[in-house]
Amino acid sequence: MIDRTAFLTAAAALLGDRGITTDPELVEPWLTDWRGRFTGRALALASPADTRQVAALVALCAAHGVPIVPQGGNSGMSGGATPDASGTAIILSLRRMTAIRAFDPAARQITCEAGLVLQTLHELVAEQGLRFPLTLGGKGSANVGGLIATNAGGTQVLRHGSMRAQVLGLEAVMADGSVFDALVPLKKDNRGFDLKQLLIGSEGTLGIITAATLRLMPAVAERRVVWVGLPSLGAARTLLLHCEAAAGAALEGFEVMPQVTLDDVLDHLPGARAPLDAPHPWHALIELVAESGRADQLGDLADTMLESAFEAGLLDDAVVAANETQAEAFWLLRDSIAPAERAKGPAVQHDISVPVAQMPAFVETAVPLIEAAWPGTQALAFGHLGDGNVHFHVIAPRGVEASAWQQGDGKAISAQVHDLVTQWHGSISAEHGIGQLKRDELGRLGDPVHLALMRAVKQALDPHGLLNPGKLVPLASPVVNP
Amino acid sequence: MIDRTAFLTAAAALLGDRGITTDPELVEPWLTDWRGRFTGRALALASPADTRQVAALVALCAAHGVPIVPQGGNSGMSGGATPDASGTAIILSLRRMTAIRAFDPAARQITCEAGLVLQTLHELVAEQGLRFPLTLGGKGSANVGGLIATNAGGTQVLRHGSMRAQVLGLEAVMADGSVFDALVPLKKDNRGFDLKQLLIGSEGTLGIITAATLRLMPAVAERRVVWVGLPSLGAARTLLLHCEAAAGAALEGFEVMPQVTLDDVLDHLPGARAPLDAPHPWHALIELVAESGRADQLGDLADTMLESAFEAGLLDDAVVAANETQAEAFWLLRDSIAPAERAKGPAVQHDISVPVAQMPAFVETAVPLIEAAWPGTQALAFGHLGDGNVHFHVIAPRGVEASAWQQGDGKAISAQVHDLVTQWHGSISAEHGIGQLKRDELGRLGDPVHLALMRAVKQALDPHGLLNPGKLVPLASPVVNP
Repeated sequence: MIDRTAFLTAAAALLGDRGITTDPELVEPWLTDWRGRFTGRALALASPADTRQVAALVALCAAHGVPIVPQGGNSGMSGGATPDASGTAIILSLRRMTAIRAFDPAARQITCEAGLVLQTLHELVAEQGLRFPLTLGGKGSANVGGLIATNAGGTQVLRHGSMRAQVLGLEAVMADGSVFDALVPLKKDNRGFDLKQLLIGSEGTLGIITAATLRLMPAVAERRVVWVGLPSLGAARTLLLHCEAAAGAALEGFEVMPQVTLDDVLDHLPGARAPLDAPHPWHALIELVAESGRADQLGDLADTMLESAFEAGLLDDAVVAANETQAEAFWLLRDSIAPAERAKGPAVQHDISVPVAQMPAFVETAVPLIEAAWPGTQALAFGHLGDGNVHFHVIAPRGVEASAWQQGDGKAISAQVHDLVTQWHGSISAEHGIGQLKRDELGRLGDPVHLALMRAVKQALDPHGLLNPGKLVPLASPVVNP
Repeated sequence: MIDRTAFLTAAAALLGDRGITTDPELVEPWLTDWRGRFTGRALALASPADTRQVAALVALCAAHGVPIVPQGGNSGMSGGATPDASGTAIILSLRRMTAIRAFDPAARQITCEAGLVLQTLHELVAEQGLRFPLTLGGKGSANVGGLIATNAGGTQVLRHGSMRAQVLGLEAVMADGSVFDALVPLKKDNRGFDLKQLLIGSEGTLGIITAATLRLMPAVAERRVVWVGLPSLGAARTLLLHCEAAAGAALEGFEVMPQVTLDDVLDHLPGARAPLDAPHPWHALIELVAESGRADQLGDLADTMLESAFEAGLLDDAVVAANETQAEAFWLLRDSIAPAERAKGPAVQHDISVPVAQMPAFVETAVPLIEAAWPGTQALAFGHLGDGNVHFHVIAPRGVEASAWQQGDGKAISAQVHDLVTQWHGSISAEHGIGQLKRDELGRLGDPVHLALMRAVKQALDPHGLLNPGKLVPLASPVVNP
């Protein structure tokens, strides 16, 4: 039994007045995840000022048996930063920890604390002619610690990799309050297990990320954005291989959507126009970029790439954005898919991946299968073809009651989609993570050897289970009596 | 107490006659590491034919309490594949497992078993116009499993990263004989801890790597090799930043050596000539490459990069290899440093890294410090400046007796070098690994939090300590009575 008063008194002594609160008005905004699917309760909201305070607080929690839910921008997709209903856990917000500890533009490295917001990071490094090569819709709230804890993705993974690829160094507070310091970036270091990699993507279940050293890239000087019409998703995959060969490192993005999704976006966006005159079964949005000093060749590169694709019969039609305004208009169509689909009514969404080469066949198998099994539904796949990652939405039949459908058919559809993905050796969470949303599905479908190893590592690093309990790591299978 | 006979009988039943032997003539070649520093004994040499056999053998070892020393090409630098003197362990050689399970040239991916030799891999993918972007001196014996288990480096890490960056998927047999299957390459997969990353670089102490899916690159169509004379190592670092900015992804290698090292190589290599007319305090070997379809711009790129470097005063002299023969002659100078230094007499070698920006200051501090403390020694640093990784050799005074010096002053010098590197937040093993050679040094100098986490992970995944005992993971500090 937690001695609530003793714990809170000791925590206040460690963190000061600004550092911890039980005021319901201050705590309440952080008890619900941003998609509004999960709401919990918390013993308190702690907001330490620095790593030393985090370490002291975690040690105090360990001594009192108080569970900890680390929270960054609270804009995750899987409820990973939302406490459970018991009210025994504290929320440990990293929001106050936004210091830049070091910034070396020549080496293209920055060391910052976990609470730094992604958009602030973008702006900060842009002042030095650099960029941080990862972005996503929630950049105004997502922060560095949460991005690392969830190994966030986005639309630039094709060229630059996910968050894991950006992390050169890491600092984290472990379950006993000790500080794991691997912040100094060494390009080569073979002194044993790469524990940093274990923390990336662990969703706060193994340690609390407090700071990181990140790699930066030269700023983009120019881009070419191309919209392409295609006969099939298989043709899109062939075109992708062509573009990778022709454009090499200049290929920054390759996003796909079917005609029906483009139509939904055009219906939803006032004044929006289709980039191509005629409809096509599939569309691809391709972005090429050049860093400063190499921009003059970009136009030629795009032209050559498209001409050879035309000649090889790899596409039906294509248009290059004439200027930056048009380029932004093309991207707006892509970025408006989520709101456009939401406007159509209730749906269940799946963030899935399969090996890139198999994605066309997977979509061509899964879409008719789902639509046949649940008449009146519409299944759509769109997104990051180059990463083998599509967002697979299944829209409810017209007129159903949202909540009942989502709890009934919606759940059954999700289970079916996850079964299919697993049969295709894919992932039920490509970039959004597991959190509490998919933990049971991971337990149901995960490879038993993987699950056993995850549980062994969790037990080793957090033996009392105080770090983000109920998230990510599936419960061991219940013993079933015969 | 191991029941030797029962174990060997059961193992022979599992593996067949070719799969296990105790014949001293067959076992003996694998009892000594290739540098000849460590020799052990073994209960038997097992050579399973496939993953199923590895799994069965490991389960049998677990049941009988038989330790396992996994061995690839037996060309590691740190004695990581050599058994201890007790003779209780088996050597588990992956040499027979060389199958190519899948090869997709379009996707630039290959799935092969652990025993495939690096040079064979190079040749195999070259037939399809591709390359595997990692190479090193021991490529004729080093195999895929060992390269992954040690996270091998080499001269192409600057552009392509070490072995970790090449591994898209992995299969390994865990301590209980279960098979961890993460071979299918998913570009995005956020289903929890990335256990694959934990196995990479774990030197066989957490699991036995049996197969991997590797990324491939387009073959190099053309290269430009440049030799540069420089006033200081700091100037080399400035030039490196310039080349990174000017050449971007075309910069494939950036190696450095001081004049004294070049002189040693010229003395050692019959008929070799210095690339530049005059001596310079430091030299850099720079390689730019272009993949097919982009070769025509490479000459311009090299010229522009060098001209702007000259204008900015970043180098004293430079020569571009006129043809491939001269390019190979330049690289031969670099590749002959190790034999040239060996020919000079006894030395102690250190494979160290510090943050790239600090490497010049580190070398300028360490060289005079070591030479002053041990009069008559000569300290040299050369190698992969772009990776912050130099090989730091300290050559014995003339006329000393090799073995006595290495055991006495040599050990003291190594301890001093490792102390210095640790003070500079660097690594005592940049690319060669820990093995048995540096385990005690890692125990002495490693961060206590890192060491505690390593031990916890080791205990969780190999609770009976049967996987490569005595390697990598330092013993817990002995309890000292006051």
